[in-house]
Amino acid sequence: MRTVRVAVLGCGNVGTALVEALSDPERAAELAARSGVVFEIVGIAVTDRDRVRSEKPWFPSELLTDDAESLVTRDDVDLVVELIGGLEPARSLIEAALTRGRPVVSANKALLAEKGVELSDMAMTHGVDLNFEAAVAGAIPVVRTLRESLAGERITRVMGIVNGTTNFILTKMADEGGDYSAVLAEAQGLGLAERDPTADVEGFDAASKAAILAGLAFGCEVPLEKVHREGISSVRGVDVAFATHLGFSIKLLAIAEGVGPGEISVRVHPAMVPLRHPLAQVGGAFNAVFIEGEEVGSLMLYGQGAGGVPTASAVLGDVIDAARHLVSGVAAPAPVRTLERVVVPLDDLRSAFYLSIDVFDRPGVLAVVAQVFGDHRISIRLMEQVGLGDEARLIFVTHEATERDMAATIDALAELEVVEAVGGVLRVVSSSEGAGS
Amino acid sequence: MRTVRVAVLGCGNVGTALVEALSDPERAAELAARSGVVFEIVGIAVTDRDRVRSEKPWFPSELLTDDAESLVTRDDVDLVVELIGGLEPARSLIEAALTRGRPVVSANKALLAEKGVELSDMAMTHGVDLNFEAAVAGAIPVVRTLRESLAGERITRVMGIVNGTTNFILTKMADEGGDYSAVLAEAQGLGLAERDPTADVEGFDAASKAAILAGLAFGCEVPLEKVHREGISSVRGVDVAFATHLGFSIKLLAIAEGVGPGEISVRVHPAMVPLRHPLAQVGGAFNAVFIEGEEVGSLMLYGQGAGGVPTASAVLGDVIDAARHLVSGVAAPAPVRTLERVVVPLDDLRSAFYLSIDVFDRPGVLAVVAQVFGDHRISIRLMEQVGLGDEARLIFVTHEATERDMAATIDALAELEVVEAVGGVLRVVSSSEGAGS
Repeated sequence: MRTVRVAVLGCGNVGTALVEALSDPERAAELAARSGVVFEIVGIAVTDRDRVRSEKPWFPSELLTDDAESLVTRDDVDLVVELIGGLEPARSLIEAALTRGRPVVSANKALLAEKGVELSDMAMTHGVDLNFEAAVAGAIPVVRTLRESLAGERITRVMGIVNGTTNFILTKMADEGGDYSAVLAEAQGLGLAERDPTADVEGFDAASKAAILAGLAFGCEVPLEKVHREGISSVRGVDVAFATHLGFSIKLLAIAEGVGPGEISVRVHPAMVPLRHPLAQVGGAFNAVFIEGEEVGSLMLYGQGAGGVPTASAVLGDVIDAARHLVSGVAAPAPVRTLERVVVPLDDLRSAFYLSIDVFDRPGVLAVVAQVFGDHRISIRLMEQVGLGDEARLIFVTHEATERDMAATIDALAELEVVEAVGGVLRVVSSSEGAGS
Repeated sequence: MRTVRVAVLGCGNVGTALVEALSDPERAAELAARSGVVFEIVGIAVTDRDRVRSEKPWFPSELLTDDAESLVTRDDVDLVVELIGGLEPARSLIEAALTRGRPVVSANKALLAEKGVELSDMAMTHGVDLNFEAAVAGAIPVVRTLRESLAGERITRVMGIVNGTTNFILTKMADEGGDYSAVLAEAQGLGLAERDPTADVEGFDAASKAAILAGLAFGCEVPLEKVHREGISSVRGVDVAFATHLGFSIKLLAIAEGVGPGEISVRVHPAMVPLRHPLAQVGGAFNAVFIEGEEVGSLMLYGQGAGGVPTASAVLGDVIDAARHLVSGVAAPAPVRTLERVVVPLDDLRSAFYLSIDVFDRPGVLAVVAQVFGDHRISIRLMEQVGLGDEARLIFVTHEATERDMAATIDALAELEVVEAVGGVLRVVSSSEGAGS
């Protein structure tokens, strides 16, 4: 039985849950029996050594240190777990570990989206693991599935509900009505949204995860700035209600999709998902990733996307994996990121659209509006009209059209005299034939 | 770039799809770029060399041989894929490969359920991989998830819809009505059920998979004969309709569950799943595995459980993994099967039950029936009565009770003069708190 000495950097919810698991004597014995490795925590880097982190009597508070840099470079460290988050000092600390031949487990989505390829190359050069299952969709094993199970698959599309806060808000809006800002305030009260919710609700968090997923799925480097990003703050209660009425659920999706030879699209935006699609059933703070491939068909992974304890479970799986590899003297094969893929801008993408237009209720208004769609070669699949006093609301679902044509249509509609406002534009997800249940 | 020479044993749907993928020149170049390994098929063992297996011009028919034994022991074989199925000759061929230090990928659920521990030990002794992702739930990466991602998790329960044929039949019965035998005949007509459907509909196939899942989830050896097995042939159309009416879906589940310190229950039986549970939404021939753990919470993996091409995708993932390990000179850590776990018989298990009783419609009959439940300490959660001419049907859903008490209750009910028949006894799955969506 080999002992692997672990340094933990960062001790918030995830770090505390991880340290509790690794230092629980009963748990440690189980882990040793199941993994063939004895884990010994040798240091826990924090910014505030005096804060109480755990009620567990076996929690090794004496190992807390505020000097992460010294900890990472100590001679008695075999493996480093980075749970600090953000770009610096996380990046420098990970590099210090990797260049010393120490495998690293990280849950740092922001860093991996920005520097994942560089860090993976560094890990490969030094023959050690860089594992990051917990960086995307918490406890859901999507990184391992893409890296290993689907290593030979021709993946066509990955669609993920990868942000629990926004999914909680959208689910609540659909189930109980209520407008975005009211439900956001409720989520903040419950601790499910940050006081400054921008990273979640504007899709920044999901965009980092989209870049990581796209890189793994298509074997290429995906610069974060190439990820098209829209959040949920413009999703209105009326659109959520109409979506339900039309048989859809609105979800914030991270999408990575092959769109042509050597071309992919990577984007984050709210979308209408048909209720029969498995993603539509994923409610509350749960996450799910739906993968489509030429051979595998449809695959969905569903589970807890956040929370200290579930995320720590994913980190622990990575730690065991890295430790086993370390003991046997090899690294897991690094994910290939060398394929040439162009991340295309949104303009040429095709999808169906949902569109809500408030108009003055006059005879002939529908004909005027319909003319604009026709002028831009956009075909209507479905229209519903709702009276609103002197006004009317027209709800359209189109057949597939390009983003460029739709944008031009919206501009032209907004200029019509009869149009009060164009609001609630949402893309409609196409269901692959295998997705229905 | 290293070349790995592959022998394929068996060339039915899965084998053909695998050989087509590995021998397609364009595909091979992609695989090499993504995996760092060049694959070369050196032989394909079949029983009938003259049958045409593929329309692909690059299919290497010249490599077909009817001498599997010689192929496996040839000097120019690095890796063996076993897709023959059944116990012999598959077992001897796999042993011949492993003892020569050749990693093996197998999709053989029957063999792995019977001899999985023995074969895994043999693989470990010779320092090579024995991968079997495709043996359970086709393309769904549940084996890798249990072996690796959840290596440190305390799993509490695994519930799987792991047989597509029975799920197709049960889904059809629920969606369109119709009794079991009519829908089975339809499934046979569509090629979704075998002419002799016993292995599927009586739960033998699911029982093998339950044994494999239980072994992986609880780190122990699970003898197949300890798996309690009930099929779906006694599920009646009326019960399916009543289940829907009551807010449930009937699914054939393979369940592995921790039931006490060092004790597990492994079983296959039809069960009523609450409609809000993610497993209830898995329709048609799809498979899904729902995993619950102390830390990970709820995790569900969903996808194609069968079919040559999807299953070949899982086999290919295993082949790439085994090849990478072979090239780097190590084996994947074998799944631990050394923990002491007693597989307990059904008697002491607790669950809620659904029960349908046909009675003669006389005053006081409900009191007589209710008395029997009370005598056996079984508490009723819900009762509905349906008139049937001179008879009535009483539908009960109980609170949790032991199997022993329920069996005694059923015996006592059957002896009542007012009872015409006791039919449609089904266990009701308890929803973990995290499972709702």
